[in-house]
Amino acid sequence: MPLRFLTAGESHGPQLTAILEGLPAGLPVDGEAIAHELARRQQAYGAGGRMKIEQDRASITAGVVAGRTTGGPIALTIRNRDWQNWATRAIKPMTIPRPGHADLTGAIKYGYRELRLALERASARETAARVAVGALCKQYLAAFGIRVQGYVVAIGSVQADLPDDLPYEQRFAQAESNDLRCPDPAAVEAMRRLVWDCMQAKDTLGGVFEVVALGLPPGLGSHVHWDRRLGGRLLGAVGSIHAIKGVEIGQAFANATRFGTEVHDELFVDAEGRLYRRTNRAGGLEGGITTGEPLIVRAAMKPISTTLNPRRSVDLATGEPALTVYERSDFNAVPRAVVVAEAMVAFVLADALLEKLGGDSLDEQRPRFEALRRSRLQDLPMDNLPWSFGYELE
Amino acid sequence: MPLRFLTAGESHGPQLTAILEGLPAGLPVDGEAIAHELARRQQAYGAGGRMKIEQDRASITAGVVAGRTTGGPIALTIRNRDWQNWATRAIKPMTIPRPGHADLTGAIKYGYRELRLALERASARETAARVAVGALCKQYLAAFGIRVQGYVVAIGSVQADLPDDLPYEQRFAQAESNDLRCPDPAAVEAMRRLVWDCMQAKDTLGGVFEVVALGLPPGLGSHVHWDRRLGGRLLGAVGSIHAIKGVEIGQAFANATRFGTEVHDELFVDAEGRLYRRTNRAGGLEGGITTGEPLIVRAAMKPISTTLNPRRSVDLATGEPALTVYERSDFNAVPRAVVVAEAMVAFVLADALLEKLGGDSLDEQRPRFEALRRSRLQDLPMDNLPWSFGYELE
Amino acid sequence: MPLRFLTAGESHGPQLTAILEGLPAGLPVDGEAIAHELARRQQAYGAGGRMKIEQDRASITAGVVAGRTTGGPIALTIRNRDWQNWATRAIKPMTIPRPGHADLTGAIKYGYRELRLALERASARETAARVAVGALCKQYLAAFGIRVQGYVVAIGSVQADLPDDLPYEQRFAQAESNDLRCPDPAAVEAMRRLVWDCMQAKDTLGGVFEVVALGLPPGLGSHVHWDRRLGGRLLGAVGSIHAIKGVEIGQAFANATRFGTEVHDELFVDAEGRLYRRTNRAGGLEGGITTGEPLIVRAAMKPISTTLNPRRSVDLATGEPALTVYERSDFNAVPRAVVVAEAMVAFVLADALLEKLGGDSLDEQRPRFEALRRSRLQDLPMDNLPWSFGYELE
Amino acid sequence: MPLRFLTAGESHGPQLTAILEGLPAGLPVDGEAIAHELARRQQAYGAGGRMKIEQDRASITAGVVAGRTTGGPIALTIRNRDWQNWATRAIKPMTIPRPGHADLTGAIKYGYRELRLALERASARETAARVAVGALCKQYLAAFGIRVQGYVVAIGSVQADLPDDLPYEQRFAQAESNDLRCPDPAAVEAMRRLVWDCMQAKDTLGGVFEVVALGLPPGLGSHVHWDRRLGGRLLGAVGSIHAIKGVEIGQAFANATRFGTEVHDELFVDAEGRLYRRTNRAGGLEGGITTGEPLIVRAAMKPISTTLNPRRSVDLATGEPALTVYERSDFNAVPRAVVVAEAMVAFVLADALLEKLGGDSLDEQRPRFEALRRSRLQDLPMDNLPWSFGYELE
Repeated sequence: MPLRFLTAGESHGPQLTAILEGLPAGLPVDGEAIAHELARRQQAYGAGGRMKIEQDRASITAGVVAGRTTGGPIALTIRNRDWQNWATRAIKPMTIPRPGHADLTGAIKYGYRELRLALERASARETAARVAVGALCKQYLAAFGIRVQGYVVAIGSVQADLPDDLPYEQRFAQAESNDLRCPDPAAVEAMRRLVWDCMQAKDTLGGVFEVVALGLPPGLGSHVHWDRRLGGRLLGAVGSIHAIKGVEIGQAFANATRFGTEVHDELFVDAEGRLYRRTNRAGGLEGGITTGEPLIVRAAMKPISTTLNPRRSVDLATGEPALTVYERSDFNAVPRAVVVAEAMVAFVLADALLEKLGGDSLDEQRPRFEALRRSRLQDLPMDNLPWSFGYELE
Repeated sequence: MPLRFLTAGESHGPQLTAILEGLPAGLPVDGEAIAHELARRQQAYGAGGRMKIEQDRASITAGVVAGRTTGGPIALTIRNRDWQNWATRAIKPMTIPRPGHADLTGAIKYGYRELRLALERASARETAARVAVGALCKQYLAAFGIRVQGYVVAIGSVQADLPDDLPYEQRFAQAESNDLRCPDPAAVEAMRRLVWDCMQAKDTLGGVFEVVALGLPPGLGSHVHWDRRLGGRLLGAVGSIHAIKGVEIGQAFANATRFGTEVHDELFVDAEGRLYRRTNRAGGLEGGITTGEPLIVRAAMKPISTTLNPRRSVDLATGEPALTVYERSDFNAVPRAVVVAEAMVAFVLADALLEKLGGDSLDEQRPRFEALRRSRLQDLPMDNLPWSFGYELE
Repeated sequence: MPLRFLTAGESHGPQLTAILEGLPAGLPVDGEAIAHELARRQQAYGAGGRMKIEQDRASITAGVVAGRTTGGPIALTIRNRDWQNWATRAIKPMTIPRPGHADLTGAIKYGYRELRLALERASARETAARVAVGALCKQYLAAFGIRVQGYVVAIGSVQADLPDDLPYEQRFAQAESNDLRCPDPAAVEAMRRLVWDCMQAKDTLGGVFEVVALGLPPGLGSHVHWDRRLGGRLLGAVGSIHAIKGVEIGQAFANATRFGTEVHDELFVDAEGRLYRRTNRAGGLEGGITTGEPLIVRAAMKPISTTLNPRRSVDLATGEPALTVYERSDFNAVPRAVVVAEAMVAFVLADALLEKLGGDSLDEQRPRFEALRRSRLQDLPMDNLPWSFGYELE
Repeated sequence: MPLRFLTAGESHGPQLTAILEGLPAGLPVDGEAIAHELARRQQAYGAGGRMKIEQDRASITAGVVAGRTTGGPIALTIRNRDWQNWATRAIKPMTIPRPGHADLTGAIKYGYRELRLALERASARETAARVAVGALCKQYLAAFGIRVQGYVVAIGSVQADLPDDLPYEQRFAQAESNDLRCPDPAAVEAMRRLVWDCMQAKDTLGGVFEVVALGLPPGLGSHVHWDRRLGGRLLGAVGSIHAIKGVEIGQAFANATRFGTEVHDELFVDAEGRLYRRTNRAGGLEGGITTGEPLIVRAAMKPISTTLNPRRSVDLATGEPALTVYERSDFNAVPRAVVVAEAMVAFVLADALLEKLGGDSLDEQRPRFEALRRSRLQDLPMDNLPWSFGYELE
């Protein structure tokens, strides 16, 4: 897997840092587009106060020279503007773990003397670094006409109603037009009321969203080994996002209730000999390999763990039962999580595309991409049949 | 990640092979227990004819000497008894891809001249090797009192009704008592009728199942980096199984519809200073780290792709529309997939446990396991507070 | 790094197993050529008695169908014919560790109750599996005209005298004509006398050899990250072979005594605009990247650890000083180690070539290889200069 | 392999960045010690002009809070003070590749339009980031009493004469007392004269150095799989350093000329039942595993590629033969390379120690380290012997 990245940074430390290694040379990098993705991550109806403090912008300090990637590792840093408020002050101890958070599990694992040490790294603030990395991956994919974007389909119990034939490009546009990142205007209003009520009740919300990749060639991923199957790689990457606890390719849980003849996408051939499907219930993957249809990744986000409404817990300093103390947080972060998941999907797809293309520069990869086998009959050579296995056995 | 494995083998080739590298020395290996897992993988109401041919048994040819692991790589082989039927005969060309299968995507990716070349490796026959690997991982986990097992909760539209307070050990026992691997006797009957009807209709079924790990210590996995979060690792591993297209930790998709105060598990302390939770809606993970509660992984399996009822496709040899030709397959493989998912969960957990324990032999690991921090107050040392960040900035 | 392999197997167990994952589809596999490499590994003047027992031949049980790779993992097994002699007999305890061997370090690491458990896996018998893997990698490289082969340059204190202008192909041929695998006939005779004397003295020998790769394109490996530099990858792979304790690219230790103007290879241009070098002191690598000149890897093998002449040690069963007890072994294994090192070099180069080419089948890779940039001026485009850095800093 | 790091940064870009992932929590971090290592990397008789510009100091922006590691990834940045001189100016094109450098190979690989793009990342400036990473690894090792340090043994043709019984601690101290980092005072003077002559001749020098690790427990690394053998891992890591083209464990190339009885280190037992060796010709590794004796890694550095004395090359802009143009560089960088190699050795050893110890905090690891098996008889349990193989074969 040719692409890799590491991130570092505490939520209230001076900055987040990411290094992305493996992008080819010669890709023009658009800093405004990175900033745009970072801004998208910060916007949601029901987002917490911190979003008013931070206006994220990534500095690129390595790997992009004269506006293009060099092939070397790319370093990205995002300053935490809130850092000034925390830099020198004495930090009040935090000893009452919040249910649902990494407060307690992180402290147990690392033997921390202070729950905040887990929290500082476990915070979803880290996802800003992922979004910056993902923005670069998106630009790489876009160089080949591939687009990755998402939208909210449910907030709490309110579900969007999206006609099957609503084009994805239109879904994206409609979702970006509102602060719930949902393409269904009627649902947006119901979601807004629900978030409002939730804030009044000092509670929090989760939801479901979809990330879609358009323009993918067939043949990314592989069936030949378990850790090369694209389905698992996508579930693993999106499932690594804070608060995401379920992921499916297409409507997997719904499809599990149906018969095979209702689920699988029949194949057809057009006049030019191009194979196509009239449905995409597979969500763009068959056998762990892209079909060339839109790739659809759906994720379930749990409600934010930090509720204004205090929860029962235990004060570790005293051993006595205690109520949680509020830390600034979101009421509804689903629209923001969409952007993080887009980044992770873009990372996995860029990685899989690099496997398929190989090479070290965009100039080297372009003709290879053009030659990628399309689902046309003439590109699937037939030769002498029948054959027999013929393993070489001693 | 200290544990790794590779598998090899075609569905109708002479044998499957797996190499598992990273288990410590000194683990007693029970060959009957491996055979038992392989047999469990072969049993289901609605399984296809091949199960009557194969009675899988793994040979261990390396890494286990005098009944114990040596610390060296373990080689496992499982013979394909069907191989005799295929070894020398001329293989009839297969040119009509089945919707839902890797037939077409695999052929496009690898430029195959024959769809069967993709099918031979894409076949779920490969999962027998995973089950053998997972059986070893289960034995390693069992050495520390950890158990991994699963059961079916839905076949097609028939859902089991499992009371929350039905103990997991009882669920396991009840599930193993029937060929639908479901702990709810009423549901079993309804499922059996559905599978029967489905077979009459020449159709196929999918479903939903749960894999549960009991006895885990808190502190496996980590929040500090995206690819170390146990949630993502589990989703990725289970999502790499054939026909599994959705995975969740606990009831993630259902939890996404609820409020935070309804979802997060409050914390309590008992008389011995041990922290505990009265609920486990988190499914055993908070912040990508085990809580010490049962770990619950749920997966959605799509209906088997190969339907007796032919589907519309295209004959790649002629370019003309054609109906699919039946290959021997299952009607309902959900009970079998449970066993494969158990294997993958056991692999991920063994890997995470090895990270926590380090070392090279069971003798070396045992006292380390005993000392693992439990969620007791006295094990979480507090020292001089407050503190301040104090990054070393130039 | 797209290519990976695992091996398993004890020296006196039933068989060695290897799985190689990542070779593209469509490569014709020549079983005789694998057998030929295995036979080469078994031949040397001064080899021990076991070589008379084993006549290695690899079975391919997966990943090669109808004579060609499928793109799936390839499983290889090599039977240990000596196994019959060990299968059921009670194994005499071995409690006196041999200096230089993994007997003691392996026992300490794994907490073994018997030194033989370390020895069984630490034995160089394992390298037969690597040679089989390497034989496949060689066949892959050969599909692009790349050849990897080696020869002995010193046994103990006897050094071959090889004129700089002796062509590599001729060196290979001359080396294969004798059982010291050395291209210098005069040195061969001196080496033979030395080995004879050594056997009479019940002692052992090491030596130095070279592995050369011909026909490599420029541009494999990379300078951009430490773990992608081909020099380190080659040193690591060859340095992982039993008894190999030093590795250099070209004459690195000798070059370290010279001035820069004496070492670096000047550049010239021919009439067709092709860049070339008249010397190859760099050994085929500059900046961790192939230059297109022959790649030269030199390795130092320590004398075999097991000497007929007993060495002072300690009987772990009694705690008393004791002399080592002889185990069957080689007196001189340098000619055999050449073949193992060829395999590891071939593996690293196949991996690096796969990175450069990407893709999944030989048909897909062939035109990519043809288009690989050669060191011609016209392939190195110049555009608007000067430029400036222009990092995107906040 | 639990520890990993990425670096990024161009030689004349704004800064170098590194992220180190995998150190446990609770390690006190000494910023001055990091600065000290960075300063050591900058000092050498014969170093170039840039060392007068840069006075490296690493900022830690993540992973170290209140003076201790958190267990999270650690981000390090080192500013390039020379950046001000390059930030905005137009960069003069560089079109004449220097023999020995990555100028041409990097340009061919990445399809650069300017040789400087390869040079900027291929420059040894990157090693400052490795030294900062290595300084953290040294502090981790030091927490267990392990020390890693090195010294020069040859510059060009001048070799140090070091008595075998000169203690390593004394070698380190004597080496640090002079700007050739050599423990032999007589050799230092001869080396200084050689470097002076070399500078007058506008030429460059290479050399040989040793890195030694003291205080290692036995049992790090493993014989069970090729990529876990510590010898290969050390050769690979040190061989990834700029200009390092040969690496050996102990005096491997010299040992290759000797007989086995002259090379292998006999074993003895002391009154407390502790096993020991009187010699260390193995250089601290047997079977790819530490013996507990000093680990000795020796490396050959080629002369610096950039010579003031111009070399013949080709101007890629015109296709005409041309002489190289001087870029600021070192005449003798061997004393500086020692520090980089120390960093890489420390990284590999910290990684191997983490494998052995497992766990997540220093508090968790300390008792595990104490219990590490020492080479005493009583720690090597013997049980019922004889035994037999007993593989589970079908």
